[in-house]
Amino acid sequence: MDTYLVARAVAEIGECLRVQDHLLATAESCTGGLIASTLTDTPGSSEWFAGSVVAYANQVKTKLLGVPETTLEQYGAVSEPVVIAMAQGALKALDADVSVAVSGIAGPGGGTPDKPVGTVWIAWAWPGGNRARQYNFQGTRDQIKGQTVMAAVNGLLGVTK
Amino acid sequence: MDTYLVARAVAEIGECLRVQDHLLATAESCTGGLIASTLTDTPGSSEWFAGSVVAYANQVKTKLLGVPETTLEQYGAVSEPVVIAMAQGALKALDADVSVAVSGIAGPGGGTPDKPVGTVWIAWAWPGGNRARQYNFQGTRDQIKGQTVMAAVNGLLGVTK
Repeated sequence: MDTYLVARAVAEIGECLRVQDHLLATAESCTGGLIASTLTDTPGSSEWFAGSVVAYANQVKTKLLGVPETTLEQYGAVSEPVVIAMAQGALKALDADVSVAVSGIAGPGGGTPDKPVGTVWIAWAWPGGNRARQYNFQGTRDQIKGQTVMAAVNGLLGVTK
Repeated sequence: MDTYLVARAVAEIGECLRVQDHLLATAESCTGGLIASTLTDTPGSSEWFAGSVVAYANQVKTKLLGVPETTLEQYGAVSEPVVIAMAQGALKALDADVSVAVSGIAGPGGGTPDKPVGTVWIAWAWPGGNRARQYNFQGTRDQIKGQTVMAAVNGLLGVTK
């Protein structure tokens, strides 16, 4: 993860949110809280960061983020419908105006032919809208987490403006 | 943060939890998700890690972790009663058997004469019990976050055995 570039992007995102009096939230599975931690490395982030739900267990996705069990069963945790539901759930659970959610397979275990290690879905949501994208990252568990954080933050640059 | 020592401690904590079929949760304020991210750097952590509530805004502490508003008002967010309530709330919200919660002032702003930058409360909870301790860390925002993660993890070594 390019710490310098990420810090610059986070400062820009924070300033956009602050000016608009908006709060940001994250819902994280494979990154395990690293997006929230990266965002809050910036001093003053409490002005624009509400918090995060790190939903490692599927029951946390259901209970705290309101992801329907049927969606989890039908599409699996690493899927477009689940990551969009996580992002929408984060807006509601954390009373936020913008959110980003990630669900993926950081490895080294857990990959399948359909969804190999490095498969990551990211969704960004705001009241009334959302966008989602699938990524196929390469590398170690740490590298996949880092690339996911960078992609999540890059996407926030677009949706917070 | 001594990454090697922390990783060794997390591996030991994970093995204790796995053998007991116990789930761990975190509730984080000043670390912003860094404890959860550190715990889940270990492959296979999904077997024993439920998730985390990163409660940066006070309303998240109240809404998702059930910290009473009166406790927040009376003692402030960085206090023993609040951090114990956060740890107990994490057990319930995340259906966990063990939890750790942190609330502190990572700086550079936010310090007061009573609670200077580096003041951090950490609580560990399990059904029927808890313990809490105050720390006074020194250093930059990153260093205070890192020292908080190490103290939280060290405490988990004691309570997961």
